Amino acid sequence: MHGGSFEVLRGSYEVLRPLEDAATMFLVVIGSTRTSTIPGISIAGASPEATLLTPTLDVEYLVAGRPLTLDVVPVTPEGIPTPALLTRASLSLIGDVPVMVVDSGASRAPLIPHVALPSRMAGDRIDSGKALPRGVARRLYEEARLLGAHLGRGHALVVGESIPGGTTTAMAIMEGLGYKARGLVSSAGPSNPHGLKWSVASKGMERAGLEPGRSDVFTVVEAVGDPVHVSIAGIAAGALEAGSPLVALAGGTQMAAVLAILSRLGVESPGRLALLTTRWLVEDPTSDIIALVDQVYPGVTLAAANLDFSKSRFEGLRAYERGYVKEGVGAGGASILAMIRAGADPTRILEAVESEYERITGGVRG
Amino acid sequence: MHGGSFEVLRGSYEVLRPLEDAATMFLVVIGSTRTSTIPGISIAGASPEATLLTPTLDVEYLVAGRPLTLDVVPVTPEGIPTPALLTRASLSLIGDVPVMVVDSGASRAPLIPHVALPSRMAGDRIDSGKALPRGVARRLYEEARLLGAHLGRGHALVVGESIPGGTTTAMAIMEGLGYKARGLVSSAGPSNPHGLKWSVASKGMERAGLEPGRSDVFTVVEAVGDPVHVSIAGIAAGALEAGSPLVALAGGTQMAAVLAILSRLGVESPGRLALLTTRWLVEDPTSDIIALVDQVYPGVTLAAANLDFSKSRFEGLRAYERGYVKEGVGAGGASILAMIRAGADPTRILEAVESEYERITGGVRG
Repeated sequence: MHGGSFEVLRGSYEVLRPLEDAATMFLVVIGSTRTSTIPGISIAGASPEATLLTPTLDVEYLVAGRPLTLDVVPVTPEGIPTPALLTRASLSLIGDVPVMVVDSGASRAPLIPHVALPSRMAGDRIDSGKALPRGVARRLYEEARLLGAHLGRGHALVVGESIPGGTTTAMAIMEGLGYKARGLVSSAGPSNPHGLKWSVASKGMERAGLEPGRSDVFTVVEAVGDPVHVSIAGIAAGALEAGSPLVALAGGTQMAAVLAILSRLGVESPGRLALLTTRWLVEDPTSDIIALVDQVYPGVTLAAANLDFSKSRFEGLRAYERGYVKEGVGAGGASILAMIRAGADPTRILEAVESEYERITGGVRG
Repeated sequence: MHGGSFEVLRGSYEVLRPLEDAATMFLVVIGSTRTSTIPGISIAGASPEATLLTPTLDVEYLVAGRPLTLDVVPVTPEGIPTPALLTRASLSLIGDVPVMVVDSGASRAPLIPHVALPSRMAGDRIDSGKALPRGVARRLYEEARLLGAHLGRGHALVVGESIPGGTTTAMAIMEGLGYKARGLVSSAGPSNPHGLKWSVASKGMERAGLEPGRSDVFTVVEAVGDPVHVSIAGIAAGALEAGSPLVALAGGTQMAAVLAILSRLGVESPGRLALLTTRWLVEDPTSDIIALVDQVYPGVTLAAANLDFSKSRFEGLRAYERGYVKEGVGAGGASILAMIRAGADPTRILEAVESEYERITGGVRG
């Protein structure tokens, strides 16, 4: 079926079968956490402060073909482009999957049509222990659940994210819920600032008086979380309740935090829940998505796209092979969707990514 | 096939065939025009000022099952409930059609997840000749077109509306574009204030210096239109360009204004464009949807649901047979969708409407 284009690492391909031909929608949930402005936490933007705009620019580019709020495609400080490039290129190979952006709390509302959750709000630095005001996490969850319940009617959903600083908040959420996530989450660079992430997260947990595993989900998210992960969990829960044949979380170790939230809330549908990511993420020596998934949601199906950019014409893309970026904006899930639904192999996807890279950069070779 | 449940009055059933089993989404586009606050123009609310909240309450009720901004289901001054009741009941009979609300400019943002067009803005009274600021109509059209281009990927779209005062602005748009619409649009009551509507519209056209048929679409909409019709036209254009198998406009004479906009913009896809409404609307002695459609978009498929509430247990529903409400919030289109996709006949739909009526009113018999 998939002839080596992607690998199923946990669970079963049967779970992914709706992606072959069931009605499917692709969502990207965006939001900000001021945690990303702590120097050293995130390279998902040209500077710490610039990371706050990255989700907005990512989805403007994804949907409109170019960023609108600023005329700048998000890059790392080294100039390596956003994974939204992979997402857009992969989705361009598929003719029948609508794309919808959901704003759970971006610092700036994107200038494209998008779903706005009524209680959307950017999160504060989690070292404050007060990431979100009281009541907001549950409201976001319930609003997102209503959205999922409507969108999931007869539709498989593939759900990506864009939230710089998100691996730090994801780690904090999982730790707060009583899982071992310290040192296991990924980052957008080859060197992963685990010490800094832990110091930020543990300070937040201490200030909030959180004892790991002793507080309910919403208390943990309001202390050391962010608007995105709880909203994705809400969408997933609503869609599964509405009978959606599959909710595929499209992302890296952050999505383990979504699974952890679902698990703690008792949303048990392993046969209709998957996590789709990239080979780069799975092979990342600085993180361990399998160890996370096995803890937070045993039984979930995990698959990784065998993308290979080592022979790319462009240095900005070859950098993915050296541990840069790796995942984000649903890139892995979009690739796997293109493989399953449109029969694209990794070479075809690289071609589409390169032609998109050429279009947006003017084609400067590395 | 449809055994008398609905009638195809123009065009062909073949055009509607995607509703049988193609992936389909149901959209409701909401917005306000302060035209609805002119006493006598609209009964889509308990008072002229209350009409401004009706779109918001309509879609909150549709999506969440109850209005959230106020705990009041919209009714006419006589207490006859919103057609959103029919829409919700009909959609409840269908398992696989996601519902999405699009805000093009409601006076109040609904407290449910919804798509917000970036340039959304409530319209001013059209007798001012300045319904929308310069540039807004084109921006709404382009934003909506982008939305339609994404949602229409492999999906049929059924698109309803909620905008009190909308038949007046629709008439003004069509007149401004050079069609004869005076005296032909419907209203939500049995007595149709054609004189008042014309006086409001003609004053606006005069103040704006519009000569019928001489100005471009966006100039006309900005003078005497509103945010909703131009946005629906944008969604339709984008979806058709993206290869959607069908865009079905779900509404009454207002949707003729959408067809007029599409026609003037050169969006010619009669084989993939339909207008779905109710028998009450088609049989309304105070309006003539067929005369409008034949002028603005010859070749479009027009179908009407043969709903019959004459034997309802509830006076509030029997009133539909006396010319009240008749259509709105995509009621006719949702009914026809339930008929085509779920095999519901008019009796089954009435049962679903009555049980919904009972739920929201506590079941007081008329």
